[in-house]
Amino acid sequence: MNLLKVDTTKTIKDKIQNYYSEIKIGYEEIHISDSLGRYLFEDIKSSINLPEFRKSTVDGYAVVSKDTFGASESMPVFLDIIGSVNMGEISKFEISDGYTGYVPTGGMLPKGADAMVMIEYVEKLDKNTIAVNKSSAPNDYIVEIGEDIKKEEIILKKGRKLKPQDIGALSAVGISKIKVYKKPKVTIISTGDELIPPEIQIKKGQTRDINTYTIKALVEEYGGDVIDTKIVEDDYIKLRNNVQKAIDNESNLVILSGGSSVGIKDATSKVLNSFGEPGVFVHGAAVKPGKPTILSYAKNTAMIGLPGHPVSAAIVFRIFGNCIFKIILSKQSKIESTINAICLKNIHAAPGRETYQMVKLKKQEDTYTAEPILGKSASISILTRADGYIKIGIDKEGVKKGDKVKVQLI
Amino acid sequence: MNLLKVDTTKTIKDKIQNYYSEIKIGYEEIHISDSLGRYLFEDIKSSINLPEFRKSTVDGYAVVSKDTFGASESMPVFLDIIGSVNMGEISKFEISDGYTGYVPTGGMLPKGADAMVMIEYVEKLDKNTIAVNKSSAPNDYIVEIGEDIKKEEIILKKGRKLKPQDIGALSAVGISKIKVYKKPKVTIISTGDELIPPEIQIKKGQTRDINTYTIKALVEEYGGDVIDTKIVEDDYIKLRNNVQKAIDNESNLVILSGGSSVGIKDATSKVLNSFGEPGVFVHGAAVKPGKPTILSYAKNTAMIGLPGHPVSAAIVFRIFGNCIFKIILSKQSKIESTINAICLKNIHAAPGRETYQMVKLKKQEDTYTAEPILGKSASISILTRADGYIKIGIDKEGVKKGDKVKVQLI
Repeated sequence: MNLLKVDTTKTIKDKIQNYYSEIKIGYEEIHISDSLGRYLFEDIKSSINLPEFRKSTVDGYAVVSKDTFGASESMPVFLDIIGSVNMGEISKFEISDGYTGYVPTGGMLPKGADAMVMIEYVEKLDKNTIAVNKSSAPNDYIVEIGEDIKKEEIILKKGRKLKPQDIGALSAVGISKIKVYKKPKVTIISTGDELIPPEIQIKKGQTRDINTYTIKALVEEYGGDVIDTKIVEDDYIKLRNNVQKAIDNESNLVILSGGSSVGIKDATSKVLNSFGEPGVFVHGAAVKPGKPTILSYAKNTAMIGLPGHPVSAAIVFRIFGNCIFKIILSKQSKIESTINAICLKNIHAAPGRETYQMVKLKKQEDTYTAEPILGKSASISILTRADGYIKIGIDKEGVKKGDKVKVQLI
Repeated sequence: MNLLKVDTTKTIKDKIQNYYSEIKIGYEEIHISDSLGRYLFEDIKSSINLPEFRKSTVDGYAVVSKDTFGASESMPVFLDIIGSVNMGEISKFEISDGYTGYVPTGGMLPKGADAMVMIEYVEKLDKNTIAVNKSSAPNDYIVEIGEDIKKEEIILKKGRKLKPQDIGALSAVGISKIKVYKKPKVTIISTGDELIPPEIQIKKGQTRDINTYTIKALVEEYGGDVIDTKIVEDDYIKLRNNVQKAIDNESNLVILSGGSSVGIKDATSKVLNSFGEPGVFVHGAAVKPGKPTILSYAKNTAMIGLPGHPVSAAIVFRIFGNCIFKIILSKQSKIESTINAICLKNIHAAPGRETYQMVKLKKQEDTYTAEPILGKSASISILTRADGYIKIGIDKEGVKKGDKVKVQLI
């Protein structure tokens, strides 16, 4: 029996970066309407200035601003109307001293004008004359050409996860099709003679397959596409054949769960090492729960062996699976939003391991409390009852009751 | 010209609750594999105990715990092996004083045993005998029947947005199909003569349609399904015909953008009021940006009129659109995760309105700074450059440089 040589999460993430950044995921060209949550394959530049013309930001009258200086309700300034701009049309007249013209919000400013007066500060005296009750400074209520987005400016960077407002911005500069990373193809193999899918009636002593479903959903959350799932017996040949098939199907990532603890039927490590160099580069993670974690790289395919326990498997995949997708999709690092809370109980950390403790949050006025959910790692309900987890560093002994903690929502 | 009578966000949210909770969105039955991010239509109870049998959480030997009391490396306890349990099978032997049997992780505990000894603390002397080097207390390393989930226990509540771990839990209790809310059907109508979709070459003076794309993506984010989008001229008859068509198509929500400011071509309010009682119940929101916001309810359909400015429209829909979906999908309230930051500039709030100020976050060691993004509300790039926003209460004058602020990520 060979003992697990464990790495820290920091080391493992560095290794993932090192090995998996070689993996090439191609791109596909899609319409912006279908692009929410996809990852940009390249920087996007605007080929135009936005706006392309000087624009009013209000409903009102275009003026030569100095004409309005000193205008007030008691001392209005009178201007002659020489035209009116329609939305979506070129303004065909020019404003000079003493003249004005109506422009709606978003309409093109006529030549000669350098400011707008809001309609609220204008009294229309007759068809051809207005009284202005308030002065406008130069550039008031107008947007200059390129003030929003400049021609050739990079508006969105490679690896960006597209948000609703990004899609709006793409439309604004006239881009309707974009290149995004293909969704990485993933095969999930659950090992274990005893695993039964939820559709099938269970016999006493048997256990349901849980990891396939949890891990598939996490893969979708991280931007991948599960092309195949399999339950395979703990048998070297059968396991190897299924991994080979996943590689043949051009999976970018093969996930094995179960069978990776140092147990009687362990074959995962041997199988993953059988596909050539560099093979297995992580044999265990200094993480609780989740020690028996294996990472391998061969034949242009990432492979990860997760613990069999559903809670451990889910946590390990949240840590390292997330990192794998970050690397292969060149994801921009995002702002980690955590909840500050007061811990309600002492938590003992596992010495020499990074501990992930699930907690339930409760709001009390303006602060949160975090109640550790204690339970055996075989309990799947720990995760459904938890709002998030506290990460306790490898060098920390634990968290004391009353300590401030950061909770990562799950 | 009728002036806008504005409501606070609190009042508007109460009205949304009041009017839109009548809207009935049906359910569909789907496989758990396809359920990530969907909203549960009903509480889910487990029809079984989990585990259904007493289970070992380790690889090791099942024992009568008192047999092991006092065992140590120098004083091991010797036990006779009378059997071995295979994964997924019923244990066919019984443990009594002086006897033991091998059980793998997840295997069924044989009758008579009340604890496990981990394999690490066992020395196998011969085929039939082990030496135990450490005592186990009753219940050590075993999970009792129903310890994880009890029969008839509600495991997930109505309105829950399904997370990966929830899907795993459903599988664990043998549930493969569930009822989730149908995705609410949404029609988006952008009004304005000048709006051009991104595919079409623009003429000088024209403006691209931005809101359709931003709002469609937000609808998807909130759990809706956009069944139709239209650009319609600012014309009462055309607008009314298109809203009628959306109602005929069984849209649960009709979104109009543009045309809702008090301007020359405003027809939205009149159109929305023409479909019967109760009609328009919000005529304006005390929100900056976003004042010209209209909400209406008629013919079992929710209708919202958004401002035409892309930034205002996006912010208003983030506030009230989000609330609408929360009500019609009975969403469980979720923990709002915000980022604490130090504000880098003074921000003046609009008097009598709730102000939403976009900011860019920067990490400086362990704290964040928030830099307000100043710019005209016509600038779509404000939103792509922002990481989130600060909400300044209706009764606040603003935020001072150096103030602690909460940033909601967007």
